[in-house]
Formats: sequence, C-alpha cells, structure tokens
Amino acid sequence: MSGVRIVEVSPRDGLQNESVRLTTAQKAELVERAVGFGARNVEVTSFVHPGKVPAMADAEDLMASLPARDGVAYSALILNERGLDRAIAAGVSEVNAVIHCTDTFSRRNQGTDIDGGVQIWHNIARTARAAGVTANLTVAVAFGCPFEGEVPLDRLRSIVSRVLEEPPAELSLADTIGVAVPVAVRERVAVAAELVTSGTALRAHFHDTRNCGIANALTAVEAGVSILDASLGGIGGCPFAPNATGNIATEDLAYALERSGIDHGLDTVALQEAGDWLEALFGRRLPAGVLHAGGFPTPSPVSN
Amino acid sequence: MSGVRIVEVSPRDGLQNESVRLTTAQKAELVERAVGFGARNVEVTSFVHPGKVPAMADAEDLMASLPARDGVAYSALILNERGLDRAIAAGVSEVNAVIHCTDTFSRRNQGTDIDGGVQIWHNIARTARAAGVTANLTVAVAFGCPFEGEVPLDRLRSIVSRVLEEPPAELSLADTIGVAVPVAVRERVAVAAELVTSGTALRAHFHDTRNCGIANALTAVEAGVSILDASLGGIGGCPFAPNATGNIATEDLAYALERSGIDHGLDTVALQEAGDWLEALFGRRLPAGVLHAGGFPTPSPVSN
Repeated sequence: MSGVRIVEVSPRDGLQNESVRLTTAQKAELVERAVGFGARNVEVTSFVHPGKVPAMADAEDLMASLPARDGVAYSALILNERGLDRAIAAGVSEVNAVIHCTDTFSRRNQGTDIDGGVQIWHNIARTARAAGVTANLTVAVAFGCPFEGEVPLDRLRSIVSRVLEEPPAELSLADTIGVAVPVAVRERVAVAAELVTSGTALRAHFHDTRNCGIANALTAVEAGVSILDASLGGIGGCPFAPNATGNIATEDLAYALERSGIDHGLDTVALQEAGDWLEALFGRRLPAGVLHAGGFPTPSPVSN
Repeated sequence: MSGVRIVEVSPRDGLQNESVRLTTAQKAELVERAVGFGARNVEVTSFVHPGKVPAMADAEDLMASLPARDGVAYSALILNERGLDRAIAAGVSEVNAVIHCTDTFSRRNQGTDIDGGVQIWHNIARTARAAGVTANLTVAVAFGCPFEGEVPLDRLRSIVSRVLEEPPAELSLADTIGVAVPVAVRERVAVAAELVTSGTALRAHFHDTRNCGIANALTAVEAGVSILDASLGGIGGCPFAPNATGNIATEDLAYALERSGIDHGLDTVALQEAGDWLEALFGRRLPAGVLHAGGFPTPSPVSN
C-alpha cells in the first residue's frame, strides 16, 4: 500500500451542518491549520445557494482570503453550472461536483432527477476542462437513501457508467447518510473500479453516523480507494438534529491508517493541536476519539 | 457465516466505569431488558474487591435477584480464586477469568505478573470444572498496554499457549484500552485460532475509544471469532476520565452484522427500546450511533 491521501473537508461538510457558525477569518484559520497538519487538498467551501446553505454564503470572501500555496489545492463543492461559474470566477482550481443515486434525493438536493444530474455533470466537466479547472465527481447516497432506502447495485453501475462519459479526475463514492458497512463498500468500490479508466482516481466519503465509518474507510482502501475525505474533530451534524452526524474524524482515520502501516502524510502533532483548537472554538466535546484518547501509548513502565 | 453471538456486558464492563451508579434493582432491570432483546449470555457483574470496584459491590445481591431462565447464562467476571469462590457460592454458572499480556498491567489489575496470572487461571479452571461451572478466559490488553505500549506477538502466542494447558470454554482477545486496528485483529485472532482445540470457542472484546471498534469486531468475525462482547448504548468510560470509553455498542454491532448478512439473534425493536430506557436513566447522550440515527432507512418516497 503506497499510501492514502486524506482530503480535509471540515471547512465545508463539517461546518455546513453545524449549529456553531464560524466567521470567515475563523474558517481561514481552520484551512491554514489543515495545511499546517499536512493536508494537500482542503475542501474549503461550497458555491451553492446562500439561502439554502447560509453557512457557506461567504464562499467568495473565504477564497479571496486564502494565500496561494504550492502543492496545496483549495477545492470547493458545486451542485450545478452556476456554482461552477462562481467557483471559476473566485479562482478555484479544483471543484467537486455531485450526482445522486436516487431521484428523490437528487430532486431535493440538486433540483433535478438522476438523468438531469448526469447532464449537469457532463456540462460541468466540459466547462471545467475548458477553464483549466480540475473537476471531481462525488456519487452521493451511494450506499442508501433516507427517502428510498436501498440503492440497487445495478443503478449505481449505470450511473457510474454514464457519468464516466466525461471522466472526473477523482470519482468518489459517498455514504451521505452513514448507512454503509464494509461488505457494501467492497461491493460498490469494485463496481467503480471496474468502470473507471486510468485517468480517474477512486475516492470515498464516509460519515460515522452508525460508528461504522472507520471500518468502511479501511475497507475502501483495501478495495482500491486512494483518497479519503475526513473532517477535523469529526465535526458535522447538528446537535438539534440527532440523525445528522459528522464525517469520519481526520484524527481517527490517520490513527487507523498509521497503525495499519498505511502512509497518510499528516503531522499528527499538528493535527492534535488543530483538533484541540477546534474543540475550544466549538466549546463542546467533538466526536474524534483520538482527539481525547491520544494515539497509541508510548512505553512508560512504572515501578511496582 | 452461521452467525455471531453477542454477549451483553453493559451491566459489568459498562457500569463499572460509569459515574452514574445504578441501584441493584435498576441493574436487574437492565439484565431483564437484555434478556428481552435476545441476549443469551449477559455478563451481569464481577466478583472483585468492593473497595476497588465499588459499582460491583452488590454482586451477590444482584445474582440473587435474577430469575433463572432456560437458555440464558448470567456470567460474572472474576480475577482470582477468591472471586471464583464467591461466584460459586452465589450460584453463578459461568465465569469469565482474566489473564493480562503485560506484567505492569497484570500487577495493577490482578496483583501478580503474567506468570502468576497463568497459575491463577489454571487454578480457576480446575476448581470451576470440579464445581460444574463453565470457565471462560479473557486475554486482556492483547493489542497494546497503556503502560508498556506494544504487546509483542510472540508474547501473546506464549501466553495463549500456556493458558490452553487448561482450555477455557471461550477464549477471548480483549482490546482493553481501544487501540486495536483490523490488521492487528486479523494477526492476533489467527494466533489464537492456531492454538485452540475444538472445545474452545473464540471470542473478542473491543472498546470504541478511537472509533475503530466496529471495524475490529467485523474483522474478528472474518478471522473466526463467533462470540463478541458489546454494551447497550456503548456505555462505559467516565465523563471525567476522557481516556476511558465504552465498549462497542450493542446497537451498532447488531446493525453492522445484520447489514453484513450475519445473524446476531437480537430483536432490534426491543434493543432500541432498551437503549432509549438506558439513555433516559443516564440522563445524557450515549455513544451508540444507531440508538440515535436508527437502522437502515425504510423506503418512504415523497412526492415532489
């Protein structure tokens, strides 16, 4: 195993569902700390309707405040061509677009059905290419939908096959609502792996809603995924909406990878400091286990 | 996969570290609810020094209050011959003894080193057999020690080999401090599987301290473990001691097994009710994810 790249998504997926609202300057510090602990791709914001996701209304201001750094990509989530236009205008070099695996979820999140979502992706891919912007694609609710329940494997195969007519730089399978288990991850990553060509890297995105997130992440890596999303402290989800919970925690993922002998490239001391800072900023206990328990114990024999 | 038996350990491992102190009657209700959601082995208490574990001081009273039920074992943890004598006198039919993988942890928990622990187990096994009591053995800190750090694989092999001179009914590998990851589980369960004979079933015990507990549990099953410990609500650990956290949650384990196509024999509706009851009793949010998020969503298409 040559290593896994962790995409730090706390500024976007972590913050969009939190009751705690950070200022643009605080978000910039979060991004800065993520770069400081070694993240080379930080999903910093989303260019979506500010009325629908108020926490991301400062997308342009945040982008403008981030210093350019060699080897660091500040990526942004988009849902449609309008979002792409805004991202390009803001100088974003890498975008994460989304396709959904059920019509119901797609209509609610993207305002169109699956077929419409495929068309949006094709449009985004072409426009991004012309603009010199890297375009990734997330296949959302790939493991189950809160409205429709099971997502048939054949439907996933069909969706992946159709979106790959315009291959993304990274194709991500997302367990948007945290229902996946390892056998499903193995099965669904295999479907994606069969279909992608060499120019597309496999990525995955897990929530720890049912405490299966790290199990799913490690299984995804075994199945060929080389890029994983994670969120500092495991933030995300709203204390007032018990069904929404955070991404897998960057701290826990780094621990699990490291103890599995898989390189992750992060500085765990700086990571711990960043998590402590974020927890203090939030003023509540964050879900990351390693943040509180620490890493593997170093020997300290005591006299008896 | 023919199925996994889940041992409900919340009355013992769950409660011994909690700041919330239940009455004997409340513990009996917890046991009753565990039987109600389908647990066929409930670790109800420990016969240890009441000065060291005050929460278990009512071991005899609790045992006396539990109704005998066909097909249900109320098991108890013991650390030495004195504990076994108490358990036998209290009418316990199944005991869980402990051996530790480091001298430092063993001295602190059992008052003797590893060699002394092996001798204690041999004594316990013989006395239990003579008394007609089933004796299981937990190999504690099998994945790492808070004082000594790494536990060499050869030492684990040596310990397991020596304790098997008196084979337990169940041999459990325990990640006492929640440091394990799946590669370690695969490796260490394989060692145990090589050494046990057909009369000894493999069991495992995980804590979710670093959010790797379900990953470890599923890996253990793949590696040949047929019995897993879990705790209703994921209770355990003390809010005032952030390094101590609970067992894997029964709710989350049942979910992960079920979605993996592995039978667990529990009634998930009764399990949910028991978790809701326990959370109300504790008056704080318990760690079990499924307790709050629910199981896999059932289809409920909405009109758009």
